[in-house]
Amino acid sequence: MEEAFAGKRVLITGGLGFIGSNLARRLVKADAQVTLVDSLIPEYGGNLFNIAGIEDRVRINISDVRDEHSMKYLVQGQDYLFNLAGQTSHMDSMQDPQTDLEINVRAQLSILESCRKYSPAAKIVFASTRQIYGKPDYLPVDERHPLRPVDVNGINKMAGEWYHILYNNVYGLAACALRLTNTYGPRMRVKDARQTFLGIWVRLLLEGKSFEVWGGEQLRDFSYVEDTIDALLLTAQNDAANGKVFNVGGEPVVSLLETAQLLVEANRGGEYAVRTFPAERKRIDIGDYYADDRLLREAVGWHPKTSLAEGLRRTLLYYQNHLYQYI
Amino acid sequence: MEEAFAGKRVLITGGLGFIGSNLARRLVKADAQVTLVDSLIPEYGGNLFNIAGIEDRVRINISDVRDEHSMKYLVQGQDYLFNLAGQTSHMDSMQDPQTDLEINVRAQLSILESCRKYSPAAKIVFASTRQIYGKPDYLPVDERHPLRPVDVNGINKMAGEWYHILYNNVYGLAACALRLTNTYGPRMRVKDARQTFLGIWVRLLLEGKSFEVWGGEQLRDFSYVEDTIDALLLTAQNDAANGKVFNVGGEPVVSLLETAQLLVEANRGGEYAVRTFPAERKRIDIGDYYADDRLLREAVGWHPKTSLAEGLRRTLLYYQNHLYQYI
Repeated sequence: MEEAFAGKRVLITGGLGFIGSNLARRLVKADAQVTLVDSLIPEYGGNLFNIAGIEDRVRINISDVRDEHSMKYLVQGQDYLFNLAGQTSHMDSMQDPQTDLEINVRAQLSILESCRKYSPAAKIVFASTRQIYGKPDYLPVDERHPLRPVDVNGINKMAGEWYHILYNNVYGLAACALRLTNTYGPRMRVKDARQTFLGIWVRLLLEGKSFEVWGGEQLRDFSYVEDTIDALLLTAQNDAANGKVFNVGGEPVVSLLETAQLLVEANRGGEYAVRTFPAERKRIDIGDYYADDRLLREAVGWHPKTSLAEGLRRTLLYYQNHLYQYI
Repeated sequence: MEEAFAGKRVLITGGLGFIGSNLARRLVKADAQVTLVDSLIPEYGGNLFNIAGIEDRVRINISDVRDEHSMKYLVQGQDYLFNLAGQTSHMDSMQDPQTDLEINVRAQLSILESCRKYSPAAKIVFASTRQIYGKPDYLPVDERHPLRPVDVNGINKMAGEWYHILYNNVYGLAACALRLTNTYGPRMRVKDARQTFLGIWVRLLLEGKSFEVWGGEQLRDFSYVEDTIDALLLTAQNDAANGKVFNVGGEPVVSLLETAQLLVEANRGGEYAVRTFPAERKRIDIGDYYADDRLLREAVGWHPKTSLAEGLRRTLLYYQNHLYQYI
């Protein structure tokens, strides 16, 4: 599926981050001309080590998506824009809602305005999130499920997603959005739980410490990052995806407790403590979630290839070798 | 229903505008202590003439809801906040999306942050819009209908509405939102169609000119401003409304052509031309819309009292006397 990108110009916002850097690796292999935009804000996902080994085959532009002038220049002449930069922490969005708004709403609008004016032929794939569904009415959650975000981050990501679809519909830009579930794998942030709770679990496990499972009965689906990237690449190259929003899910559906057990098994040891859900998180807890992603499967032929057990094994292997680059 | 407001401190954003000024008149009659915030930006709805006769019984504060410092001070000590300020023009939101975002998204978040920090006991009623539904899947549209905004204004109003509900749910602020349909009546903007197309119809009719009906078959419901204000007052004083979103509709459901005919009849003469929907509007046209507002009726005992024919008659009477103050 990478063939379509040979010789193409590709811009990735959040390009030094978890998903962005893994995507860059795939695109570099495909001989795409890749530019990575990243702000390298310490609390977010960017890390120069993420592109170790490919640093000479990508162009790195350190700037923030809130910098309209930078983005206006960078979008020009691109064939593809993978728009992955975002503030992802739900707690941070509650403590500093305006910053979340600037990144997840205002910057998105200015990126789209830049594309409309200066790069109308670029195909745009936006990384949205299942967080915008809120607490599900039914399972699995399909794309027709009502949107009821339970935090500022969810509201803002919803607006950012809608801008993309609107600009597709009204201005004829080619844009689509993927509502990602819990994405995990090598190069994710493990310093803390800002990007995913699996990150801090992996770190603590490898440091020989006990990690905490909050609640434990909640059902989730997880997407190994290479499967997520398949979805990004397939929707980017497929016109049938334009103007559409797709769930990206993962197999199997598991409880948090089962996930913790799988992680400990993959590590051949380790321990965790089950803890009551903290009150401040309880208010924005969504209970069970897993995605119906048949729309994506049918539209572009995507399917996940990596089981959770295998994905966790590969993730641990990566951090066993490189943990010191991430903490 | 105004009795609950006697002696209470009430802040109205957009207080010199169409709905805000009519609301102020009702609250002044009820002996509330009313503060009106308005930016008086010429393209928006504020007009000092709107408070002619009550100017000595309200406090007027000329400032913009984007001015965080002003809002932080003004919300303090209020019992009620009617949060009506907004950018309402769909075309303006497409031509200058960032300004729409600043007013309808960022300012809303900072108002809510100010309330959370400095006025947590104030009850907040937010003026949302039926525009966020987009093109209806079914009629009449109830509050469970999916949200699919078709313009930047709709996306931004949706985010603003969600912030209000979120702050109710997470922080215990008392807030609710009304999704207003086409509101009309004395003190609406008639200079152009920025607030409502009925405005420019009324102006042209009274100037003896032909007005334009775009399309004509589209069904709509209209809410006479005094009925809209009943909804604002009832939801403000009723705790059962907290955290909820309500449609506000109107009777009867009519086509745009029927509306034009009713307006001409109310004026005892006048003419209009039926015109094909302009291409630039067609892309964001939503077809038929009318609201199911039973939730509001059941929750707070609201019902509309003014028929469209009677409302149009009163509106024309107002502008026959005062048109020169509005053009």
